[in-house]
Amino acid sequence: MSDSEQELGITESKEYSTGDWYAEVVQKAELADYAPMGGFIVTRPRGYQIWERIQNHLDGWFKDTGVQNAYFPLFIPEGHLEREKDIVEGFDPEVAWVTQGGYDELDERLAVRPTSESIIAPYMSQWTRSHRDLPLRLNQWCSVVRWEATETKPFFRTKEFLWQEGHTAHEDSDGAWEETMLRLEQYERVYEDVLAMPVLKGRKPDHDKFPGAHTTTTVEALMPDGKSVQGGTSHYLGTSFGEAFDITYIDENEDEQTAHTTSWGLSWRAMGALIMTHSDDQGLVLPPTLADPQVVIVPIWQDDNVDEILGYAEELESTLDDAGIRVHLDDRDHRNPGFKYNEWELKGVPLRIEVGPNEMDEETATLVHRPDGESETVDATTITETTEDHLDTVFAKLYASAEETLEGEIREAESREEILGTIGQHGGYVKCGWCGEEACEEPVKDAIAAEIVMVPLDRDEEPIHEECAICGEDAEETAYFAKTY
Amino acid sequence: MSDSEQELGITESKEYSTGDWYAEVVQKAELADYAPMGGFIVTRPRGYQIWERIQNHLDGWFKDTGVQNAYFPLFIPEGHLEREKDIVEGFDPEVAWVTQGGYDELDERLAVRPTSESIIAPYMSQWTRSHRDLPLRLNQWCSVVRWEATETKPFFRTKEFLWQEGHTAHEDSDGAWEETMLRLEQYERVYEDVLAMPVLKGRKPDHDKFPGAHTTTTVEALMPDGKSVQGGTSHYLGTSFGEAFDITYIDENEDEQTAHTTSWGLSWRAMGALIMTHSDDQGLVLPPTLADPQVVIVPIWQDDNVDEILGYAEELESTLDDAGIRVHLDDRDHRNPGFKYNEWELKGVPLRIEVGPNEMDEETATLVHRPDGESETVDATTITETTEDHLDTVFAKLYASAEETLEGEIREAESREEILGTIGQHGGYVKCGWCGEEACEEPVKDAIAAEIVMVPLDRDEEPIHEECAICGEDAEETAYFAKTY
Repeated sequence: MSDSEQELGITESKEYSTGDWYAEVVQKAELADYAPMGGFIVTRPRGYQIWERIQNHLDGWFKDTGVQNAYFPLFIPEGHLEREKDIVEGFDPEVAWVTQGGYDELDERLAVRPTSESIIAPYMSQWTRSHRDLPLRLNQWCSVVRWEATETKPFFRTKEFLWQEGHTAHEDSDGAWEETMLRLEQYERVYEDVLAMPVLKGRKPDHDKFPGAHTTTTVEALMPDGKSVQGGTSHYLGTSFGEAFDITYIDENEDEQTAHTTSWGLSWRAMGALIMTHSDDQGLVLPPTLADPQVVIVPIWQDDNVDEILGYAEELESTLDDAGIRVHLDDRDHRNPGFKYNEWELKGVPLRIEVGPNEMDEETATLVHRPDGESETVDATTITETTEDHLDTVFAKLYASAEETLEGEIREAESREEILGTIGQHGGYVKCGWCGEEACEEPVKDAIAAEIVMVPLDRDEEPIHEECAICGEDAEETAYFAKTY
Repeated sequence: MSDSEQELGITESKEYSTGDWYAEVVQKAELADYAPMGGFIVTRPRGYQIWERIQNHLDGWFKDTGVQNAYFPLFIPEGHLEREKDIVEGFDPEVAWVTQGGYDELDERLAVRPTSESIIAPYMSQWTRSHRDLPLRLNQWCSVVRWEATETKPFFRTKEFLWQEGHTAHEDSDGAWEETMLRLEQYERVYEDVLAMPVLKGRKPDHDKFPGAHTTTTVEALMPDGKSVQGGTSHYLGTSFGEAFDITYIDENEDEQTAHTTSWGLSWRAMGALIMTHSDDQGLVLPPTLADPQVVIVPIWQDDNVDEILGYAEELESTLDDAGIRVHLDDRDHRNPGFKYNEWELKGVPLRIEVGPNEMDEETATLVHRPDGESETVDATTITETTEDHLDTVFAKLYASAEETLEGEIREAESREEILGTIGQHGGYVKCGWCGEEACEEPVKDAIAAEIVMVPLDRDEEPIHEECAICGEDAEETAYFAKTY
């Protein structure tokens, strides 16, 4: 924390100017700054530590389920990208190209990776010979670059972003489909158990799936402005990449087979969604799973009792620290308690412990929750257990609040007018019957820029209505319309 | 491990063709492959996990000593690099330039970061206002690109490499110097306690320090071909960067002061040095601190006792696994024990446990060390403690062997002829008196491409001889000559 940057108040309103409010929270909570060139950001320690914690959770789960990390080159020769074009939409319009190395023009342009399928797949082909080499599960944590000319929005829209990309190969479709679902469930789990955010799991409509994919699955998160964020995607690619890149293996009967592959990715957009969901007009709100510190102790002293109060606060700090709780004692003497409260609220500390003369005399501590300010004075002799309980409660309240919002924002509609009216008035998701034709998405897209963000995972699930809300023909499935990020 | 890549034997000799042998070990132990474009490599899971473990150790120590991770952009606008040129030698000859974004030429070229001083320092300036903001300690783990036209040597010479770069600001020179030394000691510690390699700590001669640095310190590691590798560097930068980038603060007396800064970095070259040092003509040798698995259990069965032997092996595996030892039971039935021994030796597993009918009947297990093949049959009831002891012993033997080599390779000389003769004949380090003039390094450099890799850290240390071995003038310090990577 920089002690000198003292414009503590958030001046924008989450409700009325969500975009400006978001940008202000990100900067004033010291999560990120803008880089000198448009589209890039500098991720400051308070922001990067959130990403590190998200990484640690996911990375542990990946490794527990057979994934191995690797590192592939930052650059991809143009010819390699071309090869992928047969099956994957060209990334050309959004590729940053290296054309010079030192003083020399390069013979072949190098793409700064926009995603790594085309450099990873040839190696998966090389490393896969026998059925014994499968499943092959690779992942890398890296940055990718996509040259999109849009306004910079930290963690949501940046030309360079951090992510993980998983790439796996399997003997058959069952194995690959299980993998696709496993990773989708791990994404759901990181949102629910770490970010304190409920998400909807679903499938992208066929016209919006990853090019070359058989099925694209997604976790969608609802933002406070009523728009949906694609929070992570997991693709079942069938044999299309296996065929294009010759990922084949010899099976137990000595026959050559083509591997079924998957890919899946989650980016720091998850952080953007987290900040957007929980924070408020006082600043950042973080769940205890991601906050550092989780607890700040603010001593309240007078001139004549500084040493005693501070001694008491230090005892509490050391007890909590020993228990593995991330605790910080704010013992600055040039700031008053009110200033400290505001500062730590701005920076998203979930639990404040106030200790003054009363607390010291009675061997208690006053615990105050962020963001709702609920407080309780508790016995200091069991401070560790009590603090852990309160941190759990803070997490549960954040989750419950986001869940309540989400549940209230899923509505139904039976006609185009109703879809437009409902999303126009409330935002959120509108469920309706859908014939499956992209043409029936267009009238909604054209009118209010909402689209079908997902359909149910289960292809056999009955649609909620018998008729397509747009064309009136037989409905094939249930579509979830929403505006998107 | 790929079950299909079965050319197990290393065909090159470490002693007689070190370079080819190294390349073969790296590929056959599945640490890395060559990328399609020269100068780049693909780091495979078996290689990447070594880097992850090195990272985890260092990152933990950094955080324990006040360092915060951050992430700065991959690209640096050309104008920013220019700004640094006043004090830092231009990286121009080795910069990869992005000149196109999508279909458009960029107005200003973007350098793919060769190092990040010039993009980090302006933010350090912004974030440093008061003495209370100091010390400011930032670190990032990332890849950097330097367009050097040399032969690719995985982990030693690649155009893109992984590293960490630390950048700190302090109130005064004492604080910055302590920081410089602390990071150097952490580098020494990672070599000694994790990589099982002794290193020499020293200072670069003034004519070879990082441009703009007041003092460049280094850890040097001796390779088996008698050359020295710069294993990590820690720079005390004085106020030169503080002045160039306006990193100033208001001190306790309300006066403006310029911060003293440091920077320090360690790259995956450490992995190269590790592989080079310990491995042998059977393949990779890894210390137990970095190996995964640390222990491989190879069951030796006949047709009539497969189930019993396998059951016994599984019990051992589960006991060791429960104790947190990274253990793998090689229960493949299409490979014989001899094949398995060779394969795991190639891949650098430090300890093999053989269990056959005798071991089963007597409730024992036979432990075999890599690389020296020392073996002992031990009581299986205390297998965890015994295995841990043996892993410690394997580590200690690797370290002792490297230390013995290093100690025998530091010689003294009193004349240019003696320096040339000694390095020419033995390689290694030659210590001698030195007047401090770069001119006295040149005759050695010109003749045998050896240079002064370091001088003692302590500027007041008496030189070992009174006269400079080259010019005969008064010696100012002791120079360590060696050939380098």
